[in-house]
Amino acid sequence: MRNAARPGAQALPLNHVIGDMAKIMSHRIAMDHPRFFGFIPSPVDENSFLGSMLTTMYNVGAGSWYQSSGASTVEDSLIKWFAEQAGLPPSSGGIFVSGGSVANLTAVVTARDAKLQFEQRPKAVIYISEQTHSSMAKGIVVAGFHRNQIRRVQCDSSYRIKPSSLRQQIESDRKNGLIPFMIAATCGLTNTGGIDDLNALADIAESENLWLHVDGAYGASILLSKTHKHCADGIVRADSLTWDAHKWLFQVYDCGLVLVRDKRNLIESFATGASYIRDADEASSEKVNFWNRGIEMSRPARGMKLWFTLQRLGLDKVSDMIDHGVDLAEFAELVFRGFENWEILSPAQLAILNFRYVPPISKPPSEGTDFDQFCDKINAEISRLAVERNIAAPLTTRITKVLNLRMCTVSPQLSRDQLLEVIKSLDSIAKEVSASFVKKRILKI
Amino acid sequence: MRNAARPGAQALPLNHVIGDMAKIMSHRIAMDHPRFFGFIPSPVDENSFLGSMLTTMYNVGAGSWYQSSGASTVEDSLIKWFAEQAGLPPSSGGIFVSGGSVANLTAVVTARDAKLQFEQRPKAVIYISEQTHSSMAKGIVVAGFHRNQIRRVQCDSSYRIKPSSLRQQIESDRKNGLIPFMIAATCGLTNTGGIDDLNALADIAESENLWLHVDGAYGASILLSKTHKHCADGIVRADSLTWDAHKWLFQVYDCGLVLVRDKRNLIESFATGASYIRDADEASSEKVNFWNRGIEMSRPARGMKLWFTLQRLGLDKVSDMIDHGVDLAEFAELVFRGFENWEILSPAQLAILNFRYVPPISKPPSEGTDFDQFCDKINAEISRLAVERNIAAPLTTRITKVLNLRMCTVSPQLSRDQLLEVIKSLDSIAKEVSASFVKKRILKI
Repeated sequence: MRNAARPGAQALPLNHVIGDMAKIMSHRIAMDHPRFFGFIPSPVDENSFLGSMLTTMYNVGAGSWYQSSGASTVEDSLIKWFAEQAGLPPSSGGIFVSGGSVANLTAVVTARDAKLQFEQRPKAVIYISEQTHSSMAKGIVVAGFHRNQIRRVQCDSSYRIKPSSLRQQIESDRKNGLIPFMIAATCGLTNTGGIDDLNALADIAESENLWLHVDGAYGASILLSKTHKHCADGIVRADSLTWDAHKWLFQVYDCGLVLVRDKRNLIESFATGASYIRDADEASSEKVNFWNRGIEMSRPARGMKLWFTLQRLGLDKVSDMIDHGVDLAEFAELVFRGFENWEILSPAQLAILNFRYVPPISKPPSEGTDFDQFCDKINAEISRLAVERNIAAPLTTRITKVLNLRMCTVSPQLSRDQLLEVIKSLDSIAKEVSASFVKKRILKI
Repeated sequence: MRNAARPGAQALPLNHVIGDMAKIMSHRIAMDHPRFFGFIPSPVDENSFLGSMLTTMYNVGAGSWYQSSGASTVEDSLIKWFAEQAGLPPSSGGIFVSGGSVANLTAVVTARDAKLQFEQRPKAVIYISEQTHSSMAKGIVVAGFHRNQIRRVQCDSSYRIKPSSLRQQIESDRKNGLIPFMIAATCGLTNTGGIDDLNALADIAESENLWLHVDGAYGASILLSKTHKHCADGIVRADSLTWDAHKWLFQVYDCGLVLVRDKRNLIESFATGASYIRDADEASSEKVNFWNRGIEMSRPARGMKLWFTLQRLGLDKVSDMIDHGVDLAEFAELVFRGFENWEILSPAQLAILNFRYVPPISKPPSEGTDFDQFCDKINAEISRLAVERNIAAPLTTRITKVLNLRMCTVSPQLSRDQLLEVIKSLDSIAKEVSASFVKKRILKI
């Protein structure tokens, strides 16, 4: 495949190249498969394919009003609508970006410039937790901070930032002459689907004059669920918010969004012109130049496929599609709790469930390994076999010291019945693996 | 349009939404029109549309090998091939990004981490010129530097960084206890198509131990021209290189590339894992995880449409398509030089020409305005009318103190004959505008 990738002097026939493309692209994980439960899956609605195709065919350069007044108007209007869903005020604004990583980076740069004098930066500190997505730390380092300026605050038993620990840490940092300036909370932890206590963190941010960023790359979409919107209570108090549509809004890659409470902060950080007058114009004008609100100059109109999808589906349907994901994870939890030898490590939250199989033996049969390590091996093998046999892909992660299986059930195409079949199969595999492991160990003695 | 952008509760019919999309997208500049000469146009080859559409339909998450071994292999292989075209060694590597802005930012972060201790950053300085693309300064500031750490080195009469001035500036900065660490040169200035003297700058970079970045977002594509490849002599000495395929390689947005001489530098800056052992594995492995080489975690396989296009066209054709652009600008220069009252402000370079109309009068007819200001108004009006009458879009810029018209002639669909017709029309408009301006001024007296 490596050699075939290199272009030759002569043209190749269309069917040849399309055939090669098919072969190349077959080597992948189907992130959009209903039974792919790993990472955050990407179950794409067919309208996004069509919207994306049309956007591509028009191929507007959506960096400036002059190039793209139509798409820029619609993207800006859609951004305002998203901001309203989060409860942000009319001063808010944002930009469609390639995804959560760039959104988080954009937020860090904006917070940095809004909260710190340049000279203060070396003493600045940012608060995240062990559960915060790795793109947050990457964005902080890209924006010029040192890794040791990142504080990983202790979590509670639900893997959420512990407000009391955060307060203590801030106090201790201030005592040491450091300058706390930003809290990065999460709405929809990748590991567990959990949501930091946004109101508690907002209280702290308010009293300590810190920037509150909420990484809702995955979970902010819950705001479009009529039933579960309340889960994100407190998100209204964010100074900036990351929200990916290629996660739980059924879009093809790439379609991310960063919102800020006051769009002037974006313009102050990213407008390239030196003229303050023009920048002020920029904030008040309806004629948005997106290249003054983010990192990119040339940019595709990434929001248009999302606009197309929302128009085509209607919000009632979108709400149902999101609710379906929440329901599936809760259903899975119920089923596992009814089965023997399965342990729930983190209950269903925002369509994510963590669980593991614990074999029905009182202690491990072989020496030199403790019980949890033994279980780790069994659960890793369950995941491997489920993938190998094409049953489903629940991948593994660690939220505590033990390894667990994890399901993110956001596909609108998966039914409860199908999910029940998957869980039954996992249970069979678990019994098989467990028996085989116990036997192997015993035979070894 | 703003209200129509907001999603409603109910689904809208397909034809309705497609119709709205058409209306929205009609408000734009056709960056791909053969007679759009402004900015850097985006003349898209039809194979890129198809390649992009297929990439979208497969919708791989090309961040990691596990998600996307096929596309990752091909992208990595294509990156190596591009690095070879620039003469970079086998140690080189890179990543497809959304465009020049992110590529330049990626290069700044990589250079920063490769050349500076963290403590040295406040004293670090970077050298660019007045002609350097604005995304460079933006990337520097995003990466945590202050605007006053940017040195805008004086240019020669061809608007290229003056090596002697650069040497003096470096010497002076060192004397002041500052730490020079990076030169950002350009291959294909947006304004003039000019190329900095890469060998002279590389000599300085070498002797001063600085990182040499080359922003070839526009001009690096000349490396694929058999005839004009030599224009980019010295690019082989770059430590990092930006190269956009949605500019002069006929791709839809977005398709940019950043290359570095030693891919380990990318991994050291962007790999999220803490384990050095794993990072070392990452550099030697054929199993590339692109999320360890750039800012993004989730990323679409942006390089696949370019791969598709190159396979379909073949390199001989691509070379001809690039040469055609160079030829058109040289032809335009010849024609303008043959016409009366037109002045060439910067000769044809890499398919870009700068020129202006100078009315045949010895001095301005009205008081309170000098001759150049008078010419500025005339040339601005020529551009405006050419766009209004749908003849062509040569936009204006300033490379000296006077305003000039600028043509970037990269469209393979434009013939010499058609271009001649455009120039004749511009000449007619110029005469008309000039006569009207002279008359208005005279009547005022």
